[in-house]
Amino acid sequence: MHPQLRTPRAVPALHGALQSGVAIHARGIRVAALQLDISESMRENISRAGQLINRAAADGAGLASLPECFTGKYGCDHFAKWAEPILPEPRAGSGAAMMRDSARRHGMFVTGGVIEEHEGKLFNSMPVYGPSGLQAVYRKIHLSRVLGITSESDILTAGTEPTTFEMPGLPPTLVGMLCCFDLRFRDLLAQYGPNQLAHGPCAILCAPSAFLHATGTDHWELLVRRAALDGQSYVVAPNVAFNPSDQVPLHGKSMVVDPWGRVLAQCNDSGDDIAIADVDLPYLNDVRLKLPISTLAAKFR
Amino acid sequence: MHPQLRTPRAVPALHGALQSGVAIHARGIRVAALQLDISESMRENISRAGQLINRAAADGAGLASLPECFTGKYGCDHFAKWAEPILPEPRAGSGAAMMRDSARRHGMFVTGGVIEEHEGKLFNSMPVYGPSGLQAVYRKIHLSRVLGITSESDILTAGTEPTTFEMPGLPPTLVGMLCCFDLRFRDLLAQYGPNQLAHGPCAILCAPSAFLHATGTDHWELLVRRAALDGQSYVVAPNVAFNPSDQVPLHGKSMVVDPWGRVLAQCNDSGDDIAIADVDLPYLNDVRLKLPISTLAAKFR
Repeated sequence: MHPQLRTPRAVPALHGALQSGVAIHARGIRVAALQLDISESMRENISRAGQLINRAAADGAGLASLPECFTGKYGCDHFAKWAEPILPEPRAGSGAAMMRDSARRHGMFVTGGVIEEHEGKLFNSMPVYGPSGLQAVYRKIHLSRVLGITSESDILTAGTEPTTFEMPGLPPTLVGMLCCFDLRFRDLLAQYGPNQLAHGPCAILCAPSAFLHATGTDHWELLVRRAALDGQSYVVAPNVAFNPSDQVPLHGKSMVVDPWGRVLAQCNDSGDDIAIADVDLPYLNDVRLKLPISTLAAKFR
Repeated sequence: MHPQLRTPRAVPALHGALQSGVAIHARGIRVAALQLDISESMRENISRAGQLINRAAADGAGLASLPECFTGKYGCDHFAKWAEPILPEPRAGSGAAMMRDSARRHGMFVTGGVIEEHEGKLFNSMPVYGPSGLQAVYRKIHLSRVLGITSESDILTAGTEPTTFEMPGLPPTLVGMLCCFDLRFRDLLAQYGPNQLAHGPCAILCAPSAFLHATGTDHWELLVRRAALDGQSYVVAPNVAFNPSDQVPLHGKSMVVDPWGRVLAQCNDSGDDIAIADVDLPYLNDVRLKLPISTLAAKFR
């Protein structure tokens, strides 16, 4: 009686098969969620983040994502200290410059969160760099607010645009961007879903996060898996490592989840680490065919 | 750093405090998800379902829910055999009659799923009986379709109306109805959410289910907990017991979940059983205040 949905398996890479140089596998791309234990030193954070990207590239990843705000300690008191502009040619030594250089050097796609200075305001933003440079910038739409712990909207300006980018392949792999607290909002997830034309359907959702330990214990895995189930897509969810000495401890447990809601790879709570897994596009299509929720949804508008 | 959301605890009952006779507790009502191992005998199923209601009432429940289609074996080949009309004065010996009689006898609210004959069609329906009789009928909106396992819409007609009912209290407790496969559809859940005027905000969602074992292993708890998290409400989720000899094995693990997404009570997979817990309305309000997702949601229409 089991629907016999196949479990994705690692498949051989076809390196250099496409002009872009991105490693495309026979059934999809390899993706990595990079978990970083963030220190007070912006220089050190960026350096260690770069080492994680190098490891992911060595393991064959075509897409690697760092957490939200990976250049400095998370917290409304700190954001302004780590702010940087996001540009096609970013400022030397910035988080964006490291991501741009890594993407170019490894022929891969790299994203991760920085606090962005833009038109005199601060945004919680995720640039996406590919082998040929800046592809997109996602600005966090739902700024987190948990009574007594965090209220980003006191300091930051909210983005308003769901954001996607394409990675090469036949067909190209569409990736939808969201960030941490955004995971709680069904209407943003719906923007990337299988029955969306404007921003979907996304094969992958990428959710750089600095998810709180206080809420993450009960909600992190639940929300990441539900994003996969609702979107019937892979989810790459890197989180900042848990560190009990932090003013605002975060949750770690970075993960990659498949469209059936199964956790394919997961980091422990603490320390620098990588969760890496293969996207399997035929499997994704199987899930959508066997459980056709996008065509069965009733309309309530 | 923890938000210190209180864990709901049992509170003393104030029996007979209200004219209706429903046992209202100081902080809310006690709710029970009733798990039934369904046999080929409709008479036996109804009898054992009645015994579960009696047990729930003896334990102080003011609301008890049986699973979806509790009078007969689940399956498109079987539905017509168990069909019955749903009426204020139901047919003697029917599932509806047992629920009506139990609700009246115990001074409580009772719901559960039967296959309903209505205007020459079959619906997957959940009548709600209170101490004073029939309160509402919910007709399953999203008929389940999982390739090779179930396709209810070949046999059944879909409902179109989100359905709520009120239980007494100050303020009254609003309960939203959904059924099994409905749990996969964010737009139906949204109808009952904290920022809904037409059908909400619901303090409780009641989801009588016959959730498949094939999909339940990965999805049952995930979907029930996400309904609680999205709606910031309690969820009462009774399921048909797992029975490996069934043509379509179901998943069991009936549960009650709180608005923080925590499982408060859960049955094993097999056998008749009860998951019972106390709704705590002040706690529910705490969750909505501490994590104000309904006021922070961006609009994408």
